[in-house]
Amino acid sequence: MSEEVFESQLLQKIDMSDIKLPPNLVVRPLTIEDNENGFFELLAQLTKVGEISVEEFEARFNQMKNSKCYFVLVVADEEQNGKIIGTATLILEQKFIRQCALKGRVEEVVVDESARGTGLGKYLVLACTRLSKQLGVYKTTLECAPHNVKFYEKAGYSDAGEKYMQIRFLKALKIIKRCLKKTYFTDSK
Amino acid sequence: MSEEVFESQLLQKIDMSDIKLPPNLVVRPLTIEDNENGFFELLAQLTKVGEISVEEFEARFNQMKNSKCYFVLVVADEEQNGKIIGTATLILEQKFIRQCALKGRVEEVVVDESARGTGLGKYLVLACTRLSKQLGVYKTTLECAPHNVKFYEKAGYSDAGEKYMQIRFLKALKIIKRCLKKTYFTDSK
Repeated sequence: MSEEVFESQLLQKIDMSDIKLPPNLVVRPLTIEDNENGFFELLAQLTKVGEISVEEFEARFNQMKNSKCYFVLVVADEEQNGKIIGTATLILEQKFIRQCALKGRVEEVVVDESARGTGLGKYLVLACTRLSKQLGVYKTTLECAPHNVKFYEKAGYSDAGEKYMQIRFLKALKIIKRCLKKTYFTDSK
Repeated sequence: MSEEVFESQLLQKIDMSDIKLPPNLVVRPLTIEDNENGFFELLAQLTKVGEISVEEFEARFNQMKNSKCYFVLVVADEEQNGKIIGTATLILEQKFIRQCALKGRVEEVVVDESARGTGLGKYLVLACTRLSKQLGVYKTTLECAPHNVKFYEKAGYSDAGEKYMQIRFLKALKIIKRCLKKTYFTDSK
């Protein structure tokens, strides 16, 4: 069996019986072999991905797995040799507030162009949401483009009434990212 | 020396010389003894904290420390026996997108009532922001109340143009949080 980024038994604990998927689709944790199954090509439909070597992928995979806080879900299509046609990630954030609570974040939700409009995105968001509840978070949040608000409202989310602010370091990134990222996490495996 | 939630040398690598703090204030990582220095009382000025036992605090502290992704800054006032009068947390989020990038999140920014308006909040936000840049993130984000937008704009942040959505599980939390949180992280130390 392939190495998984989180224990697949956790998925069996959530009830998804209200949403049917075609029998050729399998929802499971990301595995360490999925870089060969179109995972990066799918992510590239969401944003920039770049060239990721096998070593870089496996290093990040292992960091995520060891942290126990990254629940990267993928949907594989068995009729297309296991090609990954959907993904979404639940991240657990640790807090001191609210009695040392956990908070969930849903990130990187993307469905392959060929499978949009089939309910797969909703399935992934609900799976992340129900998994976060199962794991005991006090709330789960996400950021989305304004035109996706209705989609997430149908999955139970509502506007939190807060502003989402950012600061970008793209220029600095080009200069320092590689060396710093690697040295910073080198001894964290 | 007290055990710190992250290596304090990292703070020495960022330049904060443009903002002066009174000489009685020390900015440093959270230590495992800080539950006795008013850390929870300060957090309670931000949101609900509840009763946290020493064991719960130390367990969360160690989880954060071991993950290497939680940079909890505190400001201690030496004229008040080291009482903590400010805190802010930078969290590193791991990505596959953007060439396995890191992303920063600024969370739990709070300054004691007695010290508001002194520039301490701005100092903490800039320290988190500069630390995130030093660690090689491609961007750093935060969520804030609409009336705090100008404060964060002065620190270099701008509206990301995305909606911040949430789903809350307070009722479920009361029932399942304790057992699930503890069993889930039990073997992660």
